[in-house]
Amino acid sequence: MNTPLINSIKSIDDFRRIPEGQLNELAAEIRGFLVEKVSQTGGHLASNLGVVELTIALHRAFDTPEDKIVFDVGHQTYVNKIITGRSGEFDTLRKKDGLSGFPKRADGPFDVFNTGHSSTSVSAALGLLRAMGHKGQGGRVTAVIGDGALTGGMAFEALNDAGESGLPLIVILNDNEMSISKNVGALTRHLNDMRSSHGYLSFKRSLSDFLGRIPKIGSRIRVRLSGLKSRIKYFLLPNVLFEELGFTYIGPIDGHDIHKLTETITLAKNMEEPVLLHVITQKGRGYGPAEKEPGRFHGIGPFDPVTGTEPPKNTESNSVAAGRAICELAEKEKDITVITAAMRSGTGMEEFSERFPDRFFDVGIAEQHAVTMAAGLAAGGMKPVVAIYSSFLQRAYDQILHDVALQRLPVVFAVDRAGLVGADGETHQGVYDIAYTLTMPYVDIYSPASKGELGEMLAIAIEKGNPAVVRYGRGALPDTEYPPVEYGKWLELKPVSDITVIATGRMVDIGKRAAEGRNIGLVNARTIRPMDEEMLRRIGARARRIITIEDGIASGGFGSRIAERFSGSIKVTRLGVPDTPVQQASPHEQDVICGMDEESLIREINLAAEEII
Amino acid sequence: MNTPLINSIKSIDDFRRIPEGQLNELAAEIRGFLVEKVSQTGGHLASNLGVVELTIALHRAFDTPEDKIVFDVGHQTYVNKIITGRSGEFDTLRKKDGLSGFPKRADGPFDVFNTGHSSTSVSAALGLLRAMGHKGQGGRVTAVIGDGALTGGMAFEALNDAGESGLPLIVILNDNEMSISKNVGALTRHLNDMRSSHGYLSFKRSLSDFLGRIPKIGSRIRVRLSGLKSRIKYFLLPNVLFEELGFTYIGPIDGHDIHKLTETITLAKNMEEPVLLHVITQKGRGYGPAEKEPGRFHGIGPFDPVTGTEPPKNTESNSVAAGRAICELAEKEKDITVITAAMRSGTGMEEFSERFPDRFFDVGIAEQHAVTMAAGLAAGGMKPVVAIYSSFLQRAYDQILHDVALQRLPVVFAVDRAGLVGADGETHQGVYDIAYTLTMPYVDIYSPASKGELGEMLAIAIEKGNPAVVRYGRGALPDTEYPPVEYGKWLELKPVSDITVIATGRMVDIGKRAAEGRNIGLVNARTIRPMDEEMLRRIGARARRIITIEDGIASGGFGSRIAERFSGSIKVTRLGVPDTPVQQASPHEQDVICGMDEESLIREINLAAEEII
Repeated sequence: MNTPLINSIKSIDDFRRIPEGQLNELAAEIRGFLVEKVSQTGGHLASNLGVVELTIALHRAFDTPEDKIVFDVGHQTYVNKIITGRSGEFDTLRKKDGLSGFPKRADGPFDVFNTGHSSTSVSAALGLLRAMGHKGQGGRVTAVIGDGALTGGMAFEALNDAGESGLPLIVILNDNEMSISKNVGALTRHLNDMRSSHGYLSFKRSLSDFLGRIPKIGSRIRVRLSGLKSRIKYFLLPNVLFEELGFTYIGPIDGHDIHKLTETITLAKNMEEPVLLHVITQKGRGYGPAEKEPGRFHGIGPFDPVTGTEPPKNTESNSVAAGRAICELAEKEKDITVITAAMRSGTGMEEFSERFPDRFFDVGIAEQHAVTMAAGLAAGGMKPVVAIYSSFLQRAYDQILHDVALQRLPVVFAVDRAGLVGADGETHQGVYDIAYTLTMPYVDIYSPASKGELGEMLAIAIEKGNPAVVRYGRGALPDTEYPPVEYGKWLELKPVSDITVIATGRMVDIGKRAAEGRNIGLVNARTIRPMDEEMLRRIGARARRIITIEDGIASGGFGSRIAERFSGSIKVTRLGVPDTPVQQASPHEQDVICGMDEESLIREINLAAEEII
Repeated sequence: MNTPLINSIKSIDDFRRIPEGQLNELAAEIRGFLVEKVSQTGGHLASNLGVVELTIALHRAFDTPEDKIVFDVGHQTYVNKIITGRSGEFDTLRKKDGLSGFPKRADGPFDVFNTGHSSTSVSAALGLLRAMGHKGQGGRVTAVIGDGALTGGMAFEALNDAGESGLPLIVILNDNEMSISKNVGALTRHLNDMRSSHGYLSFKRSLSDFLGRIPKIGSRIRVRLSGLKSRIKYFLLPNVLFEELGFTYIGPIDGHDIHKLTETITLAKNMEEPVLLHVITQKGRGYGPAEKEPGRFHGIGPFDPVTGTEPPKNTESNSVAAGRAICELAEKEKDITVITAAMRSGTGMEEFSERFPDRFFDVGIAEQHAVTMAAGLAAGGMKPVVAIYSSFLQRAYDQILHDVALQRLPVVFAVDRAGLVGADGETHQGVYDIAYTLTMPYVDIYSPASKGELGEMLAIAIEKGNPAVVRYGRGALPDTEYPPVEYGKWLELKPVSDITVIATGRMVDIGKRAAEGRNIGLVNARTIRPMDEEMLRRIGARARRIITIEDGIASGGFGSRIAERFSGSIKVTRLGVPDTPVQQASPHEQDVICGMDEESLIREINLAAEEII
């Protein structure tokens, strides 16, 4: 692909030298570049295609990096990386030691704050602005936040503080009418009202007149608030929500008009108060397949750039298997409900949502509410299943503990993307859930080693009526047939012996491969809690060395409980994720980095064998 | 005290038999009763005095317990307990095996959902309402939430979902113009606008006319939305915030007028849509000292009911000591800032807020924003200290991990109320922070055993520039003089021996008492992370039995790390909080329940001595 403008950008100064008349050309180049690169490496496509013009306009209107831009979630920062001179690294995108798909402060001054999880940008931006104020530095701080992320409660907490502060924080609402799933909630309706209001059109008509009365772009002169506010209100009626939170509202603006965006952002920059700039963008913009299916092109593996098709998947993912299993259960048990936080498709719950629309609740990016609402459902006699990614469930730590566990309510967490996740890197690693749910009272923790176990465990967890976690990783567990799951019972795959490996979840398969031809015991620890007391007694009576292996943090997790139990009697070696964050790499590379691949396990087995001779 | 009406209430039916003309008398009785009882037992007074009329009106307007009332936070449910026949238990309030100061589902159908932490009520109520709908049960669900709790992001998440749902959820905004500290944020300003608007008065004038047009109380007839909405808007202008979220707004209403409250709640009950009823109450109402100082009477120990004075405290609390230490540091280090989430006074930061107003941020009940805003401050070069209670910090689990720890930003958490807290019971136990921060990368954990260590550790944590937790309990650490704290170094109080006790935080004192006259080693583990490697090597070389003791969960916490380390070589007995929740009791009783008092430690020492003979 021919990308002369992109190739000319080795730094932000190169970008700034591109004449305004060529910026649309640059935008077109960036789109082609993104489609080509992401089709090879996989990554977040639709959201980046949506913010090409916005990102260009931001870097034209602001004096970055003195002015700072915090991108919420951060998967939409590819354009930011290209514009600031990092296009050459895109062949390594999301690979081991390669370019991150998210902002990383270590990558330089244009990555202002690391993000990955949703709805943090306004808080971070306000903190940065306050710090800059305290240190007497000039410079503006802008948070770019999607309409989906705006439903996360902490964004509201931050708007509340920022609005009251009166500080000139700029919040750009990147409104693409969807988060990862279709957006939900009253706020969405509010935004829809705004979009459809005549304000949009009249704003378009009036903007140039309006800008004529604003001081020259670049010279920051205080625009008098009162007059401005009433004038903006004159253009735009349905802006009350943000105005009530203390923000001056400007919008909606066409998010694909570089000139208009630059003008309007400059206007916002010259105001001495909190401003919310409402920008309408289209996810997947300019690439047909992504425009048609923005959800599929949100995060995507390698695909054919011409047709947009992906290579066929030959195995059913855990998510789909979980969704299918819950559908089957829900057919018989009418009290089963499913709650998801903007991850209907990602958690495999599309079929459920279509077959049981009355029992399906997508609450948007609102994990805290999802969990406590589920607790309310359970207190009312329902059997709720919260389908959620492990790392996003962290948002609801207190709700799991305070509202579900302490009340011993029968909420089942279908924890997807548990364990190492590969290319998304450290913010998305689902490696903490075992450790933290193990400290919470009454919570059963199921850890399936096969797709069959996954389905059975969901059924048992729902039937049992305890607070419960069923955790499974990204990808696909094997289709191995195991004997039926019994509550609280482990499975002895090879008789307990001098050296006994206790593996859980997807690590059971690694355990099986490592155990092959070796004289060791191997146990499939199907439940992390309760533990199989009878099996543990037998292990205690027989084993001289225990090796545990789990797809989670090695200190404070499952192996740690085994070590506690056999303290002073049997040495327990714990394989799992180390305390230092695991960066992006392929899943297998990450296993190797963590010393929890087959080779590492064999090494530990051999070491143990030497020690007990 | 003479309380004939209260005495007559053995059940809700007794309450319902009280003639309307006597309800103000009942309210007066309840006020006297509350002051008398709480002055003896301690408890939450001001908030309960504020909701006497509201709670009476709720139980008159609704058919409880078929209709359900969820009290946010729950410390304002004393009146609910009295009205539903539990006045006889108030002498045991907040005591071991006594009446809880919070709603407990185990106590019967009028305690609908356990609360303790803020901002959960709307989520829980919506879940309950959905469950009741699914099960074809009638009945209304009402959430009663304070204006302080409304600033918590999850309340917004829930309003967003509820407003969109169109379900007839009733949210009563109990607006007393303050949370525990003075309320903050743009939302507060919005509420102030509403309070001061002419709408309030005109609503008062018009309500009776209005109600004349509403179907007879009790017969639930669908009130047509469109007409009603516009009529209410006619009365009340500044209601847009809640209207935009999909709620019909009614208010503000005088929260101390039982008749008007009952009428208006009945009106809300007969509407078939989400309703937000804005009620103005006065914290501490009817008791002079509490009206004057509602903050002091929020949660209070025993006091003189006539004068409102408390017995003088002879020791400085940890909170005050921490606040004093941070003030001293801030005098020299200009980049220190303090962030609190509506706990300025509780965390001892009043002096700081007065001396350094530019560097103090109370963000309201918004722990998530507090932490990420602090991360933003740190990214901007400041040295933020987040002063917060351990159990409330759970709300920000993901923010500590994702925004502070993974980015290795120098945010110091001054974690107050860490460990067992006594009378508030299981929702407030600060016993999880060691376990969960130990799994987070790069976080130092300081655990002072004396007030001197507390001050020194705050200084070292701030100076060191790592993410850090300094944790200390409710109450007062001893004034013991220890040698200066060195980063990552433990203190050998009695030489490491066959049996060595490793104690941390306030448990060091219990360790010292237990060790007296016994031939054992005793170590003050000043930092839970990093551990003192050199000391651990010496312990490993010398000890045959290790006993750890910590004021936190015993499985997965500090002792667990010691057990991991000495797996297979030295038996480690871990004393600490068990997995089952620890109910309300005195601090010492809770230590005994957990087996972490002096006697229990001595028992373990003796047991170990027998084993190693």
